[in-house]
Amino acid sequence: MIHTGIVGATGYTGSELLRLLVGHPEVEIVLVTSRSEAGRPVADLFPQLRGRLDLRFTAPDIEALTGCDLLFFATPNGTAMKQVPELLAAGVRVVDLAADFRLKDPEEWERWYGMPHACPEFLAEAVYGLPEINRHLIPNARLVANPGCYPTAITLGFAPALAAQCIDPGWLIADAKSGVSGAGRSAAVATLMAEAGESFKAYAIQGHRHLPEIEQNLRGLQGPESVGITFVPHLLPMVRGIEATLYAPLAADAGDIQALYEDFYRNEPFVDVLPPGSHPETRSVRGANLCRIAVHRAPGRGGTLVVSAVIDNLVKGAAGQAVQNLNLMYGLPETLGLEIMPLSP
Amino acid sequence: MIHTGIVGATGYTGSELLRLLVGHPEVEIVLVTSRSEAGRPVADLFPQLRGRLDLRFTAPDIEALTGCDLLFFATPNGTAMKQVPELLAAGVRVVDLAADFRLKDPEEWERWYGMPHACPEFLAEAVYGLPEINRHLIPNARLVANPGCYPTAITLGFAPALAAQCIDPGWLIADAKSGVSGAGRSAAVATLMAEAGESFKAYAIQGHRHLPEIEQNLRGLQGPESVGITFVPHLLPMVRGIEATLYAPLAADAGDIQALYEDFYRNEPFVDVLPPGSHPETRSVRGANLCRIAVHRAPGRGGTLVVSAVIDNLVKGAAGQAVQNLNLMYGLPETLGLEIMPLSP
Amino acid sequence: MIHTGIVGATGYTGSELLRLLVGHPEVEIVLVTSRSEAGRPVADLFPQLRGRLDLRFTAPDIEALTGCDLLFFATPNGTAMKQVPELLAAGVRVVDLAADFRLKDPEEWERWYGMPHACPEFLAEAVYGLPEINRHLIPNARLVANPGCYPTAITLGFAPALAAQCIDPGWLIADAKSGVSGAGRSAAVATLMAEAGESFKAYAIQGHRHLPEIEQNLRGLQGPESVGITFVPHLLPMVRGIEATLYAPLAADAGDIQALYEDFYRNEPFVDVLPPGSHPETRSVRGANLCRIAVHRAPGRGGTLVVSAVIDNLVKGAAGQAVQNLNLMYGLPETLGLEIMPLSP
Amino acid sequence: MIHTGIVGATGYTGSELLRLLVGHPEVEIVLVTSRSEAGRPVADLFPQLRGRLDLRFTAPDIEALTGCDLLFFATPNGTAMKQVPELLAAGVRVVDLAADFRLKDPEEWERWYGMPHACPEFLAEAVYGLPEINRHLIPNARLVANPGCYPTAITLGFAPALAAQCIDPGWLIADAKSGVSGAGRSAAVATLMAEAGESFKAYAIQGHRHLPEIEQNLRGLQGPESVGITFVPHLLPMVRGIEATLYAPLAADAGDIQALYEDFYRNEPFVDVLPPGSHPETRSVRGANLCRIAVHRAPGRGGTLVVSAVIDNLVKGAAGQAVQNLNLMYGLPETLGLEIMPLSP
Repeated sequence: MIHTGIVGATGYTGSELLRLLVGHPEVEIVLVTSRSEAGRPVADLFPQLRGRLDLRFTAPDIEALTGCDLLFFATPNGTAMKQVPELLAAGVRVVDLAADFRLKDPEEWERWYGMPHACPEFLAEAVYGLPEINRHLIPNARLVANPGCYPTAITLGFAPALAAQCIDPGWLIADAKSGVSGAGRSAAVATLMAEAGESFKAYAIQGHRHLPEIEQNLRGLQGPESVGITFVPHLLPMVRGIEATLYAPLAADAGDIQALYEDFYRNEPFVDVLPPGSHPETRSVRGANLCRIAVHRAPGRGGTLVVSAVIDNLVKGAAGQAVQNLNLMYGLPETLGLEIMPLSP
Repeated sequence: MIHTGIVGATGYTGSELLRLLVGHPEVEIVLVTSRSEAGRPVADLFPQLRGRLDLRFTAPDIEALTGCDLLFFATPNGTAMKQVPELLAAGVRVVDLAADFRLKDPEEWERWYGMPHACPEFLAEAVYGLPEINRHLIPNARLVANPGCYPTAITLGFAPALAAQCIDPGWLIADAKSGVSGAGRSAAVATLMAEAGESFKAYAIQGHRHLPEIEQNLRGLQGPESVGITFVPHLLPMVRGIEATLYAPLAADAGDIQALYEDFYRNEPFVDVLPPGSHPETRSVRGANLCRIAVHRAPGRGGTLVVSAVIDNLVKGAAGQAVQNLNLMYGLPETLGLEIMPLSP
Repeated sequence: MIHTGIVGATGYTGSELLRLLVGHPEVEIVLVTSRSEAGRPVADLFPQLRGRLDLRFTAPDIEALTGCDLLFFATPNGTAMKQVPELLAAGVRVVDLAADFRLKDPEEWERWYGMPHACPEFLAEAVYGLPEINRHLIPNARLVANPGCYPTAITLGFAPALAAQCIDPGWLIADAKSGVSGAGRSAAVATLMAEAGESFKAYAIQGHRHLPEIEQNLRGLQGPESVGITFVPHLLPMVRGIEATLYAPLAADAGDIQALYEDFYRNEPFVDVLPPGSHPETRSVRGANLCRIAVHRAPGRGGTLVVSAVIDNLVKGAAGQAVQNLNLMYGLPETLGLEIMPLSP
Repeated sequence: MIHTGIVGATGYTGSELLRLLVGHPEVEIVLVTSRSEAGRPVADLFPQLRGRLDLRFTAPDIEALTGCDLLFFATPNGTAMKQVPELLAAGVRVVDLAADFRLKDPEEWERWYGMPHACPEFLAEAVYGLPEINRHLIPNARLVANPGCYPTAITLGFAPALAAQCIDPGWLIADAKSGVSGAGRSAAVATLMAEAGESFKAYAIQGHRHLPEIEQNLRGLQGPESVGITFVPHLLPMVRGIEATLYAPLAADAGDIQALYEDFYRNEPFVDVLPPGSHPETRSVRGANLCRIAVHRAPGRGGTLVVSAVIDNLVKGAAGQAVQNLNLMYGLPETLGLEIMPLSP
């Protein structure tokens, strides 16, 4: 059994990790920390866990933390980086679900996250935990940066076309839409139901923190310096799910893009390329560690690639991907504990 | 008083027309037709009208219809075209809220709507009723083709940039999202709440009937043959509202696009250009005859124009625009009966 | 023109008042206060008002306040009571949309609201502004306590039966459901869309602040001391609207309850008794100052009265009723500025 | 392995059965029938099943049906009763998820379902499959009538109090609210998202088909002829979940009702009595075979019992309960295949 702990488990990625880990046959949850909720039964805050998890929140304590094999950080940005050096030194492996270790360039990180990085020397070591791209690096990683939700959907959606160099990488558009759970479980006016319900809008057109992460991923697939992408996120009046519609000019000799995508993801357990002419619905992946993708060739000057990719932002976009990384880190079957069926309708 | 009738008023555009016309000081509603509901009080089908409209549905009858000054057709596609020649000959003016007279090319119409056009000789005469573009043609029109909902938002969003020739018209992207009322009030599995609720998807990527209408509009603004647009509609888990996010490569000398848009729409009562940095919400136009627009310059190869435009699909995208056309056709103040405030939240 | 101000207009009742007053022909809005937003254009916070209201929030200032004819308090509970004595002394009339003056018994008020009342000597003078019950008292009132949303629906729903003494007043059940806008526009985890969306629950079964207000109203209709009511509120996954389903044992000689309700509300402009067999939808009153009611006789021991009453919690349950009170206070037609049609769908 | 088939699996109870059975270790799904979809891959209609179920719909064929050990009928009311005699004679066991065998009295069945019963002689044999009440009868049943969704929540909510005779059974109120998936996956105007979204209403106050089923259950708990219940269902603007708020006059000597409920359900794996003061949310049981219950004593004449019970209408209210019955019928652990965690948010 792998002894794991969750640091900062009062949000949605934390509770989703608990849902998945409670049913994972090789994992024992030994601690769940929260400064604000210390002493409270976890199932009191998250009634869906009643009868399935008999733990209380504890205040984070270095001795207890270093007793774990692996720690998930489900904390706000800027928290994990303060503790990671000490934890790694103590032999604990870490999967950070926040953004602290996602970017390789510390200056860029500081620009987008508005604070100095506490341990930039670990950025190079950290493995970006998108298994479909970086699977070979994950088994030996001490420190995994779990990808952001938008970057997961957008990177998986562009990867086959970029890798095959069949699109113009300088004119990429990613029009992405997310349910409100992506904004987290913090009191805020903008995500009140009376604000976000029955309405829809774009946001952060001038720049979203996931943009440099997306650019870094796409450059990795394509080659240095050549990627130009416009990314516009939108807020959906629903709870779970991300859909990203991606656009790119197709090369004249792009060939059969349906076959390209099917081949690229043929052996991937968590990426499903739909038949030609499909339109994936977010509910078809709700609660499941899955990305479903449809590819289309739309008319236009020389042909346009249109990709629609859907994930559950809390699962393949966060907690499920973290468990997928855990499985890879410990040499377990990659799908262990992740065979959960989507819940639809 | 203008004596008006609504043909086929059992859907959402019909009931929305009734909401607006009941409060219009220069309009008298003299008939509301429906074959299936003939004899039933209108306010029995639409309880929101109780106490405000004391009419019953009647079966369409040519004598009664020709007694009207103006008829609104809120019928399915293919209905108005069968009656329009006779009605115009009898001196009745017509605003068709369906698609029968929106396209100038009868072959294109037949290709997209899957039936022969019943009176192609009227396509040239029909005025496309988007007042912000065609205002000068509407006062004398006998036959107005009321624009589609997506084309309204997308055309208004691209118009200033296309007219100023500051974008590359060959690489336009329109990623549009609509509430389910756009699908109409007909029994269908796909728009059941248990299908469309708490989920999101693209649809009709291979081609939507509004595409040729959008292309025709954009060509009119830009000049012949040069427009290339990719249009992807999406279904939102909410009732009312369209948001269109538009993308185009900016010309090197594009200049101040905020000022360009503000100037273009300065005197328009129903188009509101938001301050720089804004993100319009669909709820900010709910129930109102308004299009709110924000313009952004996103980074990317040479700069990318990003426009976010919102309308209420049933108002500026249908019934409100029809009343705006009526006001222009009869020389009334364009805003008469349309001063309704948006309902938010 | 009546010079009015709104104190504390950054919430939903405040913005709804602005929507209604902007279109009221006898009202001029002269000030809109907010400590936190002072200096900001109101239409910047509430984009739906763009182009319709050109005012900035100001900090509350006694001199400016006393320059008004009438002030609406859209503040949290406990704010109005601190300022009312000085304002009334200065000749300003007040409509308080919070709870400060709704209860006649200061001890009961203090028990439910958890603070001492700042001016209990004004509780007797304050007129409870439910026009359908207290219309005769409102024209001369200096101080109107605008009713709570649940009490409005429940009192109007029980009033005819209680007044006719055709139900057992000791065994009343009010099962009420409200959209989330009733919880106000304050950052809170419980009303985040990710918490309240796609879910439903009862709350405050042990006692809600509207219970003593409801009891006071029902006693006023029925006679002292004899009313026993169980009130359970529920939170709906939607924005606007309250539905209350009311149950009471019918007296053996209860007679024709449909006729009873129709007679009771025959001349009321804002209460609509639906035909027998109806089930009112909240959307049929959305945005409008209306209460729609259906009455049923269900089987059971001796017959059970079942009433379903719907209001828009922000209109007939708050801002609309406040404007109705203003009209009565100034001898204007009661419906002035309130002829707004419901928005459905 | 138990060879099972699902008859009529194109609706929500059918697809939910598939979700549960795909993961059930002792069940093999051998056929899935649908006349209208025969030949189509099941995962084409229900994309959430892609990669997990490789079957096509087949037309129902008696030979294939009789090759199964157990058949689930997920058909409209009136279908199963035509086939059950032949199937039972062939040694197939049947769980009917429709209403054909729920009522013991054929005349009452015919009155509520508007057709003659095809095999009334089987009504006595059929076991009403609510395990918490009838567990002892299920293992040997050939024919199980799976309970309705409302009756499940309401019966479980009243059962402890009725069995202990601590409430007046003649004055019961059940105010129940259901998500739209309860209305099924059939094209209908009333459950379009544009009709049912962002709105709320009561329905069927004059009588709902689940009323006689509820009455039959409560009589069984209480004793003959003495139960009087008023049942009002409501339609929620969400997809899954039922909440029932139940009211009853408490007997003077009712005692500790919290302890009563906890004791009654102490050993039940799928009923969870919440701590005092709780309010269960429907999302806390979403996707899971669970009923969560809170009990309260509200003030009023002599004390009022208030119970709030939540289930997922498609799981404990339909497919999950059917699998629970299968487990009992085959002597398997009752929770096998049903350990699914609720999905929240």
